Amino acid sequence: MDTQKFSDGPCPIGRALDLVGDGWSMLILRDAGYGLARFDQFRTSLGIAPNILARRLKALTAAGMLEKRRYSEHPPRDEYVITAAGRDFLPVLAAMGAWGRKHNGGGSELSYLQDEDSGRRVVPVVIDAVTGAPIGSRPLKLVVPI
Amino acid sequence: MDTQKFSDGPCPIGRALDLVGDGWSMLILRDAGYGLARFDQFRTSLGIAPNILARRLKALTAAGMLEKRRYSEHPPRDEYVITAAGRDFLPVLAAMGAWGRKHNGGGSELSYLQDEDSGRRVVPVVIDAVTGAPIGSRPLKLVVPI
Repeated sequence: MDTQKFSDGPCPIGRALDLVGDGWSMLILRDAGYGLARFDQFRTSLGIAPNILARRLKALTAAGMLEKRRYSEHPPRDEYVITAAGRDFLPVLAAMGAWGRKHNGGGSELSYLQDEDSGRRVVPVVIDAVTGAPIGSRPLKLVVPI
Repeated sequence: MDTQKFSDGPCPIGRALDLVGDGWSMLILRDAGYGLARFDQFRTSLGIAPNILARRLKALTAAGMLEKRRYSEHPPRDEYVITAAGRDFLPVLAAMGAWGRKHNGGGSELSYLQDEDSGRRVVPVVIDAVTGAPIGSRPLKLVVPI
C-alpha cells in the first residue's frame, strides 16, 4: 500500500502495514530471514516479476527492514540483508504461518519450524506478555487516544 | 496476491498470504474484528475506493474469513460479519501492531488493546507454545517436506 496516511494514523497495525503491507514484501522478508539476499535468489524462490521484486526490495530497504550491501564492484552488484527491524517481523510471519496451516493447510505436506535444541516442532501462538493468555482468549478493549 | 500457486505450495506463510495477502484485506479484517460489518462503515473507516473494497470483501468472503448476511430486503443490502477463521487471524494482526508500534511508532499517540479485566495494556508477543520461548529467541530450523 502506498498510503502514507496510515503511518500518520493512530493504529499500530496500519503503521506496520504501511511499511510491509503486501504479500510479496512479506514473502521477501520470509526468504531474507532464511538467509536469501541476492536478487536472483529471491526471484527464483518467489517466481516474482523482476520489476515488482526491484520495487519491493527498494521499499523494504527504505523502510529499514533490509540493508543494501555491495558484494561485487565489477560488475556492480548489491545484495539485500535483513536488518534487526526486519528480523523482528519474522515472529509475525510465524504466527501467520500457524494460521495458514490451520485454515489453508490441505493437500501437500507443509514445511514447519523446528526447535534446534529439542528437535520438536514449533507451535507459534500470540500471547499477551502481561497475562500470558493467548490473544483472543480474554475480552480486550481498544483504547483510542483522543 | 492472486497467486494460487502459494496455496498449493509447502509454506504455511504463503498459504496464509494467498488468502489475505494484502494490506487492505488485513485492515478490513481488523475493522471486522472491532465489529464493523457494513460497506459504508469499512469505506469510511479506511478511506478505500469502493471498487477495491468490493473486491476485497468478495475475496475475504470466498476465503471464509467473512460471511455475507442480508440485513435488508428492500432495498437489498448485505453486511459482512467476521467468521471464526477471520477471528483467528486477529492475533496475527495484534503481533503486527506490536511491530508497528516499535518500528513505525513516532509522532501522534497510538491506539492500543487493553485487557478488560485487569485494565492493563496488552503486550502481544509470539511464543512457541511448546517451549514458551519467544519466537526468535532460540535457534530454529526450517524443515521442508521432501
